[in-house]
Amino acid sequence: VVAWSSGNHAQGLAAAAAIVNTHATIVMPYDTPQIKIARTKRSGAEIVFYDRAHECREEIGYSLATRSGAVVVPPYDDYDVMAGQGTCGLELQQQCAAAGITLDALLIPCGGGGLAAGAGTAMQALSPQTRLYAVEPAEFNDHERSLLAGDRLQNDSAATSICDALLAPSPGELTFPINARNLTGVLTATDDEVRAAIQFAALELKLVVEPGGAIALAALHAKKLDIKGQRIGLILSGGNIDATLLSTILTDHSQ
Amino acid sequence: VVAWSSGNHAQGLAAAAAIVNTHATIVMPYDTPQIKIARTKRSGAEIVFYDRAHECREEIGYSLATRSGAVVVPPYDDYDVMAGQGTCGLELQQQCAAAGITLDALLIPCGGGGLAAGAGTAMQALSPQTRLYAVEPAEFNDHERSLLAGDRLQNDSAATSICDALLAPSPGELTFPINARNLTGVLTATDDEVRAAIQFAALELKLVVEPGGAIALAALHAKKLDIKGQRIGLILSGGNIDATLLSTILTDHSQ
Repeated sequence: VVAWSSGNHAQGLAAAAAIVNTHATIVMPYDTPQIKIARTKRSGAEIVFYDRAHECREEIGYSLATRSGAVVVPPYDDYDVMAGQGTCGLELQQQCAAAGITLDALLIPCGGGGLAAGAGTAMQALSPQTRLYAVEPAEFNDHERSLLAGDRLQNDSAATSICDALLAPSPGELTFPINARNLTGVLTATDDEVRAAIQFAALELKLVVEPGGAIALAALHAKKLDIKGQRIGLILSGGNIDATLLSTILTDHSQ
Repeated sequence: VVAWSSGNHAQGLAAAAAIVNTHATIVMPYDTPQIKIARTKRSGAEIVFYDRAHECREEIGYSLATRSGAVVVPPYDDYDVMAGQGTCGLELQQQCAAAGITLDALLIPCGGGGLAAGAGTAMQALSPQTRLYAVEPAEFNDHERSLLAGDRLQNDSAATSICDALLAPSPGELTFPINARNLTGVLTATDDEVRAAIQFAALELKLVVEPGGAIALAALHAKKLDIKGQRIGLILSGGNIDATLLSTILTDHSQ
């Protein structure tokens, strides 16, 4: 298999490939956090690095796959991958149902939009009264702008964010129509708000969450949504944060 | 209510007192981690500090209770408290049963022995084939020595450990006979092994665990028990670690 990924899809695919005893090649940006590189390698995958600003990972991935005859597993813009990500919404809803809880809203981290499309679709089918919000980094608010425009818009190529998992250049071709139909809205959070959420998660929830995984919590923590008296679901979609960054955030008293 | 506690029992009692709208006074050592002091205060409890090396917390607690007519809720040497701590073993066993798992062994953090007595009794009743191990800090191995001696022995008053939650001076009067009957053995872990376990928990399990809460994991991680081919349960009994200590441990490359 061949995939491109900022690191979490990479690890999943590398682990899956190891289980079924096949070879995985992952195209990852040079600035991927060390922990994600180490974990992807640990599962035996081969990594091909690329420059996020000047190279196209899809091109590199399809070119590698064509040469080797490998199957391409994209990180989000693929119905099977969305369906897999949908199991997160399915499990969440099953657990809520078992606890007798109906969520008023669900906040879902959003880069390319695959998790939002998959988990949102599952939630919509099983709990149609639950409002769905995608949450993006403030400078990567392509879904927010695209939904307003009714068309897929790009992020500024100079935009930055510590949310390495959420840096897709634009909403996915396949994910966007699904999200446009399902989402009540889009929230955003700044890097500082994400740092505050990571600190809160560690010290209050006792959970280690990576920047992209903490963005839904960040929006809630920064009061981007009026949730008074409501039951809110949050997806915390990853904990692969470099130890040094987590260490710095933990002792940052400005949060 | 009046209680003495290194910090976790304190927080629980302070929170419970706030719920039932009563006053809680907690006797805590001067060297309690800041996070535990802050959380106990946050719930509205009054804190009376004492010197662990030179004062007796039981005396201070009973004296305060006698003057005010308050109820004393000791941290471990009490059947009701042990029964409460036993719910941890009960829930663990229910979850194992639901998953179709029978544990070969369960490792339980041990200071005064209340959690070991309570959780161990629940596990013994529901899963008698599961071996039970208490796990202590290396310099606070009073249970290990007491079980060998068949009598409750004291820890060296000069002993130190980063496991602030597990620094009871000796096995409890009520907990010891229960643990003596239930336990297969006692394991210990050094401070360095505990640090390594905290780092492992954060980076691999994505869980923030305090030193005392990590000691069972530390024993396993340091290979103190041969677990090849076995199903092992671990109780991680607390996540109230000061941010600065966690930050230091995260970036300690000697682990």
